Amino acid sequence: MKRVMLAVAYDGTNYCGWQIQANGNTIQAELNRALSDLLNEPVETMGASRTDAGVHALGNVAVFDTCARMPAEKISYALNQRLPEDIKIQYSGEVAADFHPRYCESEKTYEYCILNRRFPLPTRRLYSYFYHYSLDVEKMRKAAAYLVGRHDFASFCGANAQVKSTVREITGIQIDKKDDVVTIQVRGHGFLYNMVRIIAGTLIEIGNEQYPPEKMEEILKACDRQAAGPTAPACGLTLKEIRFL
Amino acid sequence: MKRVMLAVAYDGTNYCGWQIQANGNTIQAELNRALSDLLNEPVETMGASRTDAGVHALGNVAVFDTCARMPAEKISYALNQRLPEDIKIQYSGEVAADFHPRYCESEKTYEYCILNRRFPLPTRRLYSYFYHYSLDVEKMRKAAAYLVGRHDFASFCGANAQVKSTVREITGIQIDKKDDVVTIQVRGHGFLYNMVRIIAGTLIEIGNEQYPPEKMEEILKACDRQAAGPTAPACGLTLKEIRFL
Repeated sequence: MKRVMLAVAYDGTNYCGWQIQANGNTIQAELNRALSDLLNEPVETMGASRTDAGVHALGNVAVFDTCARMPAEKISYALNQRLPEDIKIQYSGEVAADFHPRYCESEKTYEYCILNRRFPLPTRRLYSYFYHYSLDVEKMRKAAAYLVGRHDFASFCGANAQVKSTVREITGIQIDKKDDVVTIQVRGHGFLYNMVRIIAGTLIEIGNEQYPPEKMEEILKACDRQAAGPTAPACGLTLKEIRFL
Repeated sequence: MKRVMLAVAYDGTNYCGWQIQANGNTIQAELNRALSDLLNEPVETMGASRTDAGVHALGNVAVFDTCARMPAEKISYALNQRLPEDIKIQYSGEVAADFHPRYCESEKTYEYCILNRRFPLPTRRLYSYFYHYSLDVEKMRKAAAYLVGRHDFASFCGANAQVKSTVREITGIQIDKKDDVVTIQVRGHGFLYNMVRIIAGTLIEIGNEQYPPEKMEEILKACDRQAAGPTAPACGLTLKEIRFL
């Protein structure tokens, strides 16, 4: 018996998110099916991050246990043959038998992508949020700075969340603009439900000068979901990387 | 009566190409339908470039004649409301009544995008060709240089073409590599059927060192489709821009 880790990239457009569920197709269900087929035994994966419906990933992480003899590092190639085009393994390797991607200390990097131009662009529509009003990136950066560090992020927690504590730590937020694409990169140790999308929605309102950057401090202190901006659409969000510490 | 020009962006994934046809949905059919709806009269567009099934565009060009009073520059916004997500107008404006985008002198820029890495990436799959063998970009550049200028491109003309002359002029080819993405940008005055995709397929073989760069001169001189490499897949190709001279 060995424990194998997978780095999984996917286009979330056609899935009801990561986590297996009764109705609707999920990334985890596809992975379990393909792994069980490949290894000829029932396989159940444990994921690092339960991304929402429509959210993409370059490197979500999952582990599973298997008695199969196939070397762990070969599984990526073999599994990709059995996975659909919108889910592809980027890495596979053996890990310690007690390694669990959700309970190990990690740093996750999410990227929220905004297409900021006059007209929508069909070839970018699935992986960015089209926003045609002007955005002042400098003001977004100023506002984002208030979020870095360890805070109670209750204002940035979706209503469906069932968590004991809403305290989390953001280790960095970087906002870049290249041509007509604005990206918000958020790094942190664990995130609340919808947290990055609510941060993005709030930063967009500030970038559009509906509020001054200083308003972000107020929103954070309010510890009230009503104080923050809207939840930005799922298609703009990509889980880029998970680093285990 | 006025003639209106449109710059059209589309994701070609779900279309049988630009040109209207009996079986299968096309970009032109969608445009004609949306325009006829919007302007309340039968509208038929004339396109600059009949891109193939699966090929994308950032700025293909079409014109049409209309008696409608709607100002030409407003048509872009109104038309986008009636077009599907994978076709969006980027510009509309009035042009001279005798302007025809296919018979006017123009320079077209195509980009062929290759995703060159170990594993396919789901979020790039629709807009690039995944190629996992190594590519020597310097050798591709050397080979591409033979193609620049006015030549008989018969070796790079798809079998279905019905043209009097296979002489064309390529004004520039630029090959870039950024991280794991190699792009081949080809500019020219008019292209033969499948020409950019056959050039890309041939450059990939040379980049992979199946032939030396000098072989490109031989291939060009052969004036024989059999001499060149394979036609690279449609999904990697995007018509970026058409400039009228």
